Amino acid sequence: MQQYKIVMTLPTLADIRTAHVRIKPFIHRTPVMTSRLLNEHFNCELFFKCENFQKVGAFKFRGATNAVLSLSAEEKSRGVVTHSSGNHAAALALAARMNGVKANIVMPENAPVVKKNAVAGYGAEITFCKPTQQAREENTRMIIERTGATLVHPYDNFNVICGQGTAALELLEEVKNLDIVVAPVGGGGLLSGTSTCVKGINKNIRVVAAEPLNANDAYISFTTGTITPSVEIITAKEETIIECMLLVWERMKIIIEPSSATVLAIIKENRDRFSGKKIGLIISGGNVDFRKLPF
Amino acid sequence: MQQYKIVMTLPTLADIRTAHVRIKPFIHRTPVMTSRLLNEHFNCELFFKCENFQKVGAFKFRGATNAVLSLSAEEKSRGVVTHSSGNHAAALALAARMNGVKANIVMPENAPVVKKNAVAGYGAEITFCKPTQQAREENTRMIIERTGATLVHPYDNFNVICGQGTAALELLEEVKNLDIVVAPVGGGGLLSGTSTCVKGINKNIRVVAAEPLNANDAYISFTTGTITPSVEIITAKEETIIECMLLVWERMKIIIEPSSATVLAIIKENRDRFSGKKIGLIISGGNVDFRKLPF
Repeated sequence: MQQYKIVMTLPTLADIRTAHVRIKPFIHRTPVMTSRLLNEHFNCELFFKCENFQKVGAFKFRGATNAVLSLSAEEKSRGVVTHSSGNHAAALALAARMNGVKANIVMPENAPVVKKNAVAGYGAEITFCKPTQQAREENTRMIIERTGATLVHPYDNFNVICGQGTAALELLEEVKNLDIVVAPVGGGGLLSGTSTCVKGINKNIRVVAAEPLNANDAYISFTTGTITPSVEIITAKEETIIECMLLVWERMKIIIEPSSATVLAIIKENRDRFSGKKIGLIISGGNVDFRKLPF
Repeated sequence: MQQYKIVMTLPTLADIRTAHVRIKPFIHRTPVMTSRLLNEHFNCELFFKCENFQKVGAFKFRGATNAVLSLSAEEKSRGVVTHSSGNHAAALALAARMNGVKANIVMPENAPVVKKNAVAGYGAEITFCKPTQQAREENTRMIIERTGATLVHPYDNFNVICGQGTAALELLEEVKNLDIVVAPVGGGGLLSGTSTCVKGINKNIRVVAAEPLNANDAYISFTTGTITPSVEIITAKEETIIECMLLVWERMKIIIEPSSATVLAIIKENRDRFSGKKIGLIISGGNVDFRKLPF
């Protein structure tokens, strides 16, 4: 897998625009929402790009769709494969099904039943494996050898990154004169696509990566070859993230997942740095287990 | 209070249109949402008029705003009063504050703290009373005698009903050729305004009132002088209502309250009667206590 990262070409704004034209007929154009109450609360102008309303409930559908649509006819006939227990698995399964492509998903055997069902519901073939990174990669390699399927990595993939960047493209098309765009770090694909898009359009717009204090995804991402140019990382405490998640549920009446609340939490913890600014927030998704809420 | 109901004039479509022009600058034009997945699930075309996105999180803000704006300058100077522990109290408090009018709210002393805080947060003066209907009416009367405030009843009020009817007006402006409009019963004001509006625009559109099986609000409403012409009442079981609430949260990523889920629950329990139809659903609100979820 390491080799794969090294040979990856860097996406440009033009690549993201091309991806957008390609995936447009398949994705939802998600709304940009505002809340006067939250603007007053945080003393800035907030624009929520609501990827929680995207198909499969997350931005991941953009990247997965772009990856599937970028395959040659011959590659399509051999299918796609990924190892993931989360939104990327569901996104790739649906994107593949919508395009008549077979999807193989390698999932850890201890993945939540609800996630197994979601992926199976989209018609993907699931291979269960031991819950270790080695087992996931090993099983994925075996599927590739057997079927010739194309690996669609959740974030270390040119086409996936281009797809994820299209959320920011739509946001900047719709809202002019933003000072800052904040995106959660996640695996790095969203952040990479977002920063490439935003800096390509206007290098004066600040791109901020929001990350939970107790996670180290961003650092991992920054050291594995995923490209995130000119991005400032700001962390937020878990309790602030939960508070902000509840605030959005209560006041905006939309369901966002904890990683999406992180973008608001860093503003809450750093009011002075964001005060008076016009800020775009990438709300990455809304897939939440309602029986295990943190509040 | 009984006398008040008897003298009430019946609203017409023209009154609802007038109310709409009056309140438009103060309310949110809420979105009409759709879900391909839910359409497939229920085998019909569903259009969700999302009053959960209205100010104070419920359609009640429309009626309260229309009532406040309909006061004379002299009446405004004396303030408004109502007895309510729910959305109407918050709606009247905010509508009054936005128009520089004093609001007096009579609430039972055992009302949830979160509701007391919401009303107090909108600057209303709260009078707490024993949790009986008699105590509420008695306290309301005393406030009227002392201050000359105008009573804004939650539903037995001409201007309130006209205001509530504007949600259906916007829905029918936006979605053409609906076969059916479903609204929750609630106190009756929403239903009354909705049916007056819908039947006024096109008497062939069926208006259906959705009600929990274990409630008897509709029957109360039908016998107290609130006007609900040509409305069919359909009930749904509590467990179906909770299922549908969860379905909307999970699939549409929006927060709706149980009474709003009732409009979907009656469709789930009566598939044959709704199959293939184009149906507008009035989603009444999204005020939910997240610490006491029914699932």
